[in-house]
Formats: sequence, C-alpha cells, structure tokens
Amino acid sequence: MKINGIAYRSVWLDADGWSVRIFDQTRLPWEVIPLRLTTWREAAHAIRSMQVRGAPLIGAVAAYGVALAMREDPAALDPVLEALAATRPTAINLRWALDRQRAVLHKLPPAARAAAAYAEAQAIADDDAETCRRIGENGLPLLEEIAARKGRVQVLTHCNAGWLATVDWGTALAPIYMAHDKGLAVHVWVDETRPRNQGAALTAFELGAHGVPHTVIADNAGGHLMQHGEVDIVIVGTDRVTRRGDVANKIGTYLKALAARDNGVPFWVALPHSTLDMRVRDGVAEIPIEERSAAEVTEMTGRTADGRIETVRVVAEGSPAANPAFDVTPARLVTGLITERGRCAASEAALLALYPEKA
Amino acid sequence: MKINGIAYRSVWLDADGWSVRIFDQTRLPWEVIPLRLTTWREAAHAIRSMQVRGAPLIGAVAAYGVALAMREDPAALDPVLEALAATRPTAINLRWALDRQRAVLHKLPPAARAAAAYAEAQAIADDDAETCRRIGENGLPLLEEIAARKGRVQVLTHCNAGWLATVDWGTALAPIYMAHDKGLAVHVWVDETRPRNQGAALTAFELGAHGVPHTVIADNAGGHLMQHGEVDIVIVGTDRVTRRGDVANKIGTYLKALAARDNGVPFWVALPHSTLDMRVRDGVAEIPIEERSAAEVTEMTGRTADGRIETVRVVAEGSPAANPAFDVTPARLVTGLITERGRCAASEAALLALYPEKA
Repeated sequence: MKINGIAYRSVWLDADGWSVRIFDQTRLPWEVIPLRLTTWREAAHAIRSMQVRGAPLIGAVAAYGVALAMREDPAALDPVLEALAATRPTAINLRWALDRQRAVLHKLPPAARAAAAYAEAQAIADDDAETCRRIGENGLPLLEEIAARKGRVQVLTHCNAGWLATVDWGTALAPIYMAHDKGLAVHVWVDETRPRNQGAALTAFELGAHGVPHTVIADNAGGHLMQHGEVDIVIVGTDRVTRRGDVANKIGTYLKALAARDNGVPFWVALPHSTLDMRVRDGVAEIPIEERSAAEVTEMTGRTADGRIETVRVVAEGSPAANPAFDVTPARLVTGLITERGRCAASEAALLALYPEKA
Repeated sequence: MKINGIAYRSVWLDADGWSVRIFDQTRLPWEVIPLRLTTWREAAHAIRSMQVRGAPLIGAVAAYGVALAMREDPAALDPVLEALAATRPTAINLRWALDRQRAVLHKLPPAARAAAAYAEAQAIADDDAETCRRIGENGLPLLEEIAARKGRVQVLTHCNAGWLATVDWGTALAPIYMAHDKGLAVHVWVDETRPRNQGAALTAFELGAHGVPHTVIADNAGGHLMQHGEVDIVIVGTDRVTRRGDVANKIGTYLKALAARDNGVPFWVALPHSTLDMRVRDGVAEIPIEERSAAEVTEMTGRTADGRIETVRVVAEGSPAANPAFDVTPARLVTGLITERGRCAASEAALLALYPEKA
C-alpha cells in the first residue's frame, strides 16, 4: 500500500538486487525509515526484536534471511534454517516459510542455492500479497453493499491487521483499502488497542499514509458508537480460528463482538487459510492465552512535543498489572469469515465446504 | 480511607482550625502532598483546575470555599457564591452545596457567618461520608455472600468511584473497603479506564494505599477474565441513573456490562440519591454524552524511570481522535442498584419503592 503516494510492501528487495528492506516497526509511527538488512543475522535480529511482526511478514523476512545466508555461504543451509526458526519459535508461518526454502534448496548444489533462495523468498512474499489481495476482493462486496444503501461505510477495527502485519494489503484492512481505492466513502474507527497500541500506532499510521479517512478511539468507545448507529460493520483479523469458528484475536475483540451483536452490527473476521486450526474446537476452553509482561500495561512509550521518544509509567507505583494478550470470540458472535477463497459462516460445515482438504 | 495506615478524607480542615486541605488529584498518583487552601479563590482554582474532581467532593470543597470567604469578608457572600458556582457550571452537587450555604448564611448577620459557614461545610462533608458509608453497608452483603460460597471475592471495577471522588469511602469502592476491613479476601480488577486513566492512576492508588489487593488491567481484558471465571461481581459508580434504571457512566462501562451478562456475572451500580434523574427515562436516547478533547486519547502523561513527569503522543502523527467520555448501560444489563437506602432492581417501580418522594 502507499506512503505519501508511493507504493510499498512491508519487505522488499533493495535496488541493489540483493539486500533486503523493511520498516523498523518498533520505531513506527515516529520514524518511517526503511532498514537495510545485509546478513541473515540482521534478518534474525529483525524478527527477534519485533522490528517486523505479524505472522505472514515474519515468514517472508525469514525466507529472505535464508537468501542472504546463501549469498554468504551456501554450505551453511542447515544451521541457518535452525537459527532463523529459533527467533520466534511459536510463529507457525515462520516454520512454514523455512520449510519451503529447505525443500527447494536441499536438492540443489551450493552454487545454485543463492539464486534459488532469492526466487523462493520472492515467491513466498508474492503468494502472501496475493492471498491478502483475494481476501480484500472477497470482503469488498460487504462494504459495497453498505455504501450502496447508505452512501458511505463506517468500519470499526481492532489492533493491526493491515499491510504492516503481512507483505501487502493486510487481512482485515484489505477490503477497506480496496473500497477506498475504488472511490467508496469509507471511514474507519481505529481502536487504539491497549496495551501495545497497535491500532493507535500502526493501523492509524497505515491508513493515514494511504489516505484512508479514520479516527482513533479508546477501546472503551466502540459500544457507545454502535449504540448510536456510527458503526456499519466490524472487521478484525485473527491469530487462530478453530474448527467450529471460534476466533482468537487481540485482547478486547470479544467485547466488540458482544457490542456488535447487541446492536445488530455485522461482525466479520478476515483470515488466510494458514490461520485455521482444525485440531481445536472450543476456543475459549482449548486455546492457551499468552500472558505478556505487566510493563506493557504499566508503561507507555510515545513522543514528547519536542520530539523525544520517552517511556512513562501510567499506573500508580506499586500496583501490579495483568496482561492477557488475546481473547476468544465464540463463533455464535461472528457474522462470518472472509478468506482468500470466499466468505463463509463461522461453522465447521461452512469451513469444510470452503476447505475440503482440511477435513 | 487510609494512606500508609493513616486515615484521610479527600478534604479536611487543617490543624490550624481554619485552612482547608485537599490532595492535588492532578498530581496523583505521583505526588501525595496535601495542598493547603487559604482563600476562597484557591478553593475555586482547585475545583476549576480539577485538583479536586468527583461531584460530591467538588460540592464539599466549594462549601469550604464559602467558609474561607466568610472569614475574609462576610459581606461578600453573594459574589463569592456566584463565583464558586461558575467554576464547574454543570456539576449538580456544586450548586446543591452552595445553596445549602446560602440558606444558612443569608439570614445571619455578617459577624456570625464565618463560624456558621465552617459548621455547614463540615456538615456537608460529614453527610457525604455518611451516605457513602451506608452505600458500603448495603453493598457489603453481596460480597459476603460470594466470600461465604467461594472463600474469596474477585470484583471488577471501572474508572474511579472511590473515596477520592467523594469525601470518604466512595460509592462503588465503599463495599470493597468495608469487606477488606472486615477481613474478607477481596481482590479487585482495576480497569485502567482510558483515555484519562482514572483506574490506573486513582483507583489503583486508593486501593494500594489502603492495602486492598488489586491488579490493573487494560480495558480490553475484562471480558476474557469473565469468560474464565476470574470475576465474581462487577461494581461501578455512575454519573446519572434514569427513571427506568439506565446507567450513564464512564465510557466503556456498557462493554463490561455486556460481558457480565454473557458470562452470568452480576453487574451492580452504586449511587447516592443525588445521582438519580427522574426526568429522564431512556438513557441511550436522552442523555447527552460529553465529547472531550481528542488530546486525552492521543497523549498520555506519566512518570519516566528517572522521575520526570512527561506527556507523550501515542497516536500516529496526523491521525484524528474522538473522545466520547460516557456511555449508557441499559437497565436490562444491570443486576441491581446499591444506594444509601438499600439495594433495588434497576427499574422505575423499584426506584420509586425506595425513593417514594421522587415520584
């Protein structure tokens, strides 16, 4: 998507033809300077330090990390794959991308590996961008229908499920970008998404940079806006969707789904096939929820009026904090799922109809 | 309630017998230094600048402001009443407290006014503390019943409805203090309450200073905790309760009420009689919601690790923000009301049974 009129992806090959560019997302939205990665160790550091985040993007950066390694020493394939896999051991896309590289490169002589690794990294990035583009196409009719009826569309989203979390387009934001680019009058309510503020920092930055009208709100405000008819549709991303359609996503998603149901607002979830976890049925009972550092609640980082980046404590001294990072929205509250294959109900039957190979 | 073992009110007469002490709540929780007010102008400034906030407390401080004025110049009664009333023109308790002073003082010769004004200010403060103590007594059985069944009580609260918002005890927190003081194992989940962070700053400070176990959470987390049985009861305060029991309170209260209903958690609202507004029936349709400054969403103030108080922007540059300050929880989501006269259902019939004089 665009920043000041120039199209970007969240990872790309530099004009030199071999080094890799990313945005340091730990500095967004305050600094928008593409970092240049020149070694696989720099790629590993970028993943580990969350300079890049979002499962699809992590996979693509890891794949480029393999390409950088093959350029340096094509004999070092196995230790590099192992080291990159260890940067974020729980991210499923990371392993999947490295497995793709392994399958291609193992059968090649060392001299042929660098070129093949670059080609495969590019293919992984292109595949992700295409998957997200299709999610956008499949979500677009939902927004077009509202716009045709009301003249404009008010979308509420939570956290960041935009192009910065993928390679391009994003998941929840893909239909929004597409609608905006087609000239629909779209306005997005952006939940700030405490405690890590991915909405206020990343989603607001993305939408602003691409020119999509939006307004940041406290996470507390969505229910009130829905009560007063200010939200036509909710679209969020997800970290895991179970066999029966329960949706794990950033903490607070469940509260918005409850408000949507109470006010008759459609609640949609956008995802690629890789987010489906058919081994799990009851999301609330079965999905373990990561408890993250209390400091994410007690402290906030931002920019002072004179441009310094400062971290301040916002909780009374001595008071402890808890920080569950995700919650689960039961399928009964989900209007439907938007995937790269089309839309479907949040149910096992509907998911298996769309993805019969997952039975 | 107590700070480090010493009992305080949120406003009190200094040991000198005439000057007035408050905590500067714009500096809490970082500085806990009682301010000394020595003129009615200082009292007016304290109210206007929100050094004191919370409708009952504002009323009491205004009443003490009249006493300070009568000490300086007992002939200046009318202009002082007018000036104090203008500090926060919409706060209903402010006018009510000033009207009490006016009724007492107008009929007295100037020489008798100072002593009478101090006595009336003290009575206003005492009345408020007694009202809140009764709210505590009437809410306590709810916590005792849970503790008897489960061995401990987990309460979730939103915003600050504690002693810092009143003269003593608070409304929603009064039953909690009482339960804690009686030795019940109470633990409080404190919503940080974005955007102004009254939970993280004031409620956490109050509970911590009095020794009540508590944990601060992002406003997004309450639903997840309820899904997993970690909340036994929700108790919140309110800014206005309508004839049929709809509850206006700090933005985000409605979302917690929805989650409580979805998980079978009782949702109680604590209030004094002065918060009832029998002229209004449908809260969502009829109560105007204050839209406050966007800066409350885009900026946060806190303390750096080396002790400086800094304000940082947390929203991407150029992104606008909206800041509705309150929302309305429909009576259908409210388990019941806790008042100084007892508990009742959130309905017109139940309210009129408790307050027949309001018919």
